[in-house]
Order: sequence, then C-alpha cells, then structure tokens
Amino acid sequence: MKLYSHAVSGNCYKIRLFLSFLNLDCEIINVDLLKGEANQPKFLQLNPLGELPVLDDNGFILRDSQAILIYLAKEYGNEQWLPQSTRDMAKVMVWLFTACNEIARGPNDARLHDKLQFDLDIDIARINSDRILKIMNDHLQDRDWLELGHPTIADIACFPYIALSHEGGVSLDLYPHVERWVVRMFRLPNSLPLPQ
Amino acid sequence: MKLYSHAVSGNCYKIRLFLSFLNLDCEIINVDLLKGEANQPKFLQLNPLGELPVLDDNGFILRDSQAILIYLAKEYGNEQWLPQSTRDMAKVMVWLFTACNEIARGPNDARLHDKLQFDLDIDIARINSDRILKIMNDHLQDRDWLELGHPTIADIACFPYIALSHEGGVSLDLYPHVERWVVRMFRLPNSLPLPQ
Repeated sequence: MKLYSHAVSGNCYKIRLFLSFLNLDCEIINVDLLKGEANQPKFLQLNPLGELPVLDDNGFILRDSQAILIYLAKEYGNEQWLPQSTRDMAKVMVWLFTACNEIARGPNDARLHDKLQFDLDIDIARINSDRILKIMNDHLQDRDWLELGHPTIADIACFPYIALSHEGGVSLDLYPHVERWVVRMFRLPNSLPLPQ
Repeated sequence: MKLYSHAVSGNCYKIRLFLSFLNLDCEIINVDLLKGEANQPKFLQLNPLGELPVLDDNGFILRDSQAILIYLAKEYGNEQWLPQSTRDMAKVMVWLFTACNEIARGPNDARLHDKLQFDLDIDIARINSDRILKIMNDHLQDRDWLELGHPTIADIACFPYIALSHEGGVSLDLYPHVERWVVRMFRLPNSLPLPQ
C-alpha cells in the first residue's frame, strides 16, 4: 500500500493517523504541495484534481481523504470505525461531509490563508470556523465522541483541522468541549503528532 | 417519512429525485430558505446548521443531502444505487465528496451569487466551476455514468448543480460529455424537473 502525501496537509495526516490506528504498513510517497508537485502531469494521472492524499492499494487508486477513510475502514477496519447498520453508518457519514464542507470552509481555509498564503477571504473562513465550532461544542457537551459513544472515522475526519485551528488564527478557548475532545483524540493508542 | 425541503434548493432536489427513483412516498414540508425559516429555533432543533434538506424517517432525523442519499440507498434502495463491495462503494463515495466540495464551491456557489444574491466571490466560483467541469468532461468521455456503468447516487449527488450551471453564469458548451450525461439523467424513469 502506498500513500501519496505531504507533511503539511491535514487531509493527508488524517489518513496517516488512521493507518497508524489500524497498524497498517504503508509506504509514504512525498508530493511537495508547496512546490506544485501535485500539479505535474505524472501526478495528475493519479488524481486529475491535483490534490492530496491519494491511496494506491495494490493498484486500486483512490482520491479524497474522506473516501479513503471509508475505504480503509471497510477493507481493513472493523465495525468500530464505520458501522454497517444503516442508521449508525448515516450518523458517521454526516460528519464526513461536515469535514468536507463546514470544516474545510472554516478552520482549513483559515489555515491555508494564514500559514500557506492562499488567496481567500480570511474573514469568511473565520466566521465559518466559529459557526461550526459552536455547533460541535454543543454537540460534544454530553458526548466523548462525535457519534456512537466511541471513536469512529467521523472523529478522524473532523479532528485534524479543528486541532490546527490556531494556525488559522482561530482559538478554541470558547469551545471547551471541543478542546477536551481534541485531547481525547491525542490520547488514543498510536496517535500521531499534528502536521507542522 | 418527511422531508424538510425548499423548492429552490438543488440539494433538496437531489433527495426528491432519489425518492422519486425509489418510488417512495414522502411528505414534503416546505421551509422557506429565502425567508430565513431554516434559521428559526424550531428548525434549528432539527438541524443546528440551519440547512436543508433534513429527513425525518419515523423519528430518525438526518441532515446533509449526501448523507441522506447514502441512508436512502442502504435502507430502501438496492446494490445498483450504492454497492456494498468496498472498492465499488469507495468509487461512488468519491463523487459524493466531489459534490460536497468541488461542485459546491463551483456551480452551486455561482448560482447562489447570481440567482440568490449571496455575498461570495463569483470569480472564484466560476474558476472552480470550469475546473471541475473539465475534469468531469474528461471522465465522462468514455462513460455513460460516473461509475460502474449504471446510475448510482454518485450521479444523483453531482447532477443537480451541474445541470443548473447556467443559473450561475456557467456554460456547459465546452463540456459536451457532461451535457450528454445531464440529458441521460433527465431521461431516467421518474425523473423530475429542475428547481426553478
């Protein structure tokens, strides 16, 4: 198994983290986003969107961090990470799309602006950040994990860019239940340090 | 089964379309997005994000259009719409996240600006639109459907805002394979007219 990845990316981190939780061996192939290596013709054959991560599992090529989480959970995980029952699976899926939408347009975009100098509207990214953080804080008020009472790929999908919020100028101080959930994620066995 | 929905929304349309494909009876409850009804306390109890659609299936409340497609496919559909095999499911999932990310930030945002006067960067939305349309056009060059040779929830998730591109000032003229796929979608049995 090979993962095309870059150390700075939170979306790549979430796959490396899940591989670590699952104790799976995987060759990490570095693609330097900052040098534009993901937009070179050779890489675009793997992913025409020019984005990381991309998984190559014995010739099965898959793009999109959330889709890769689903694939790894079904292929190598167990019901803990992605339940098969329809309602429980749907509850987990909701948060994967939250990671793809509200968190991407919030703390992820804010970090792209502040840390990597992307040209985007930082005010909107910070407003979006506080909006989703308030909702997650309310949700986590009486829960240790996003759904089902234990860690799932919902937590793995949402956690990295929330934990990196400060790199986009977004503080978690107002969201103590989110902060405690982040600490819980770091304390899971085989956790990994955040991207630098 | 109840669907909280608004006629103008492409995300609500994709659920109504899938319900029609599945021949499922569903009570449609109108929530007027343009009058801010999705941000009223009563609705926020159903979905704290204040967004449509929301499904209520006999008390099981679910937000997010893509997650609702997954739920309906697993609960009421068959393997055609969402295959259970890991690799085929992952291929379909990739497009659900494409709908949630690249299509949402492309033709969907462009339409929100032009048709509904949302304050967002129309130039970026149009650039994003052409970027994903080119990729989809290449992908559909030798395919009738996005994956697996038949319609799946991948097509249902991606199709509405692509078909509505013109309402955001984005033309499909340069993307003939996408145009033909849109026509194919409209010709499926029990198809529905687009939102106005």
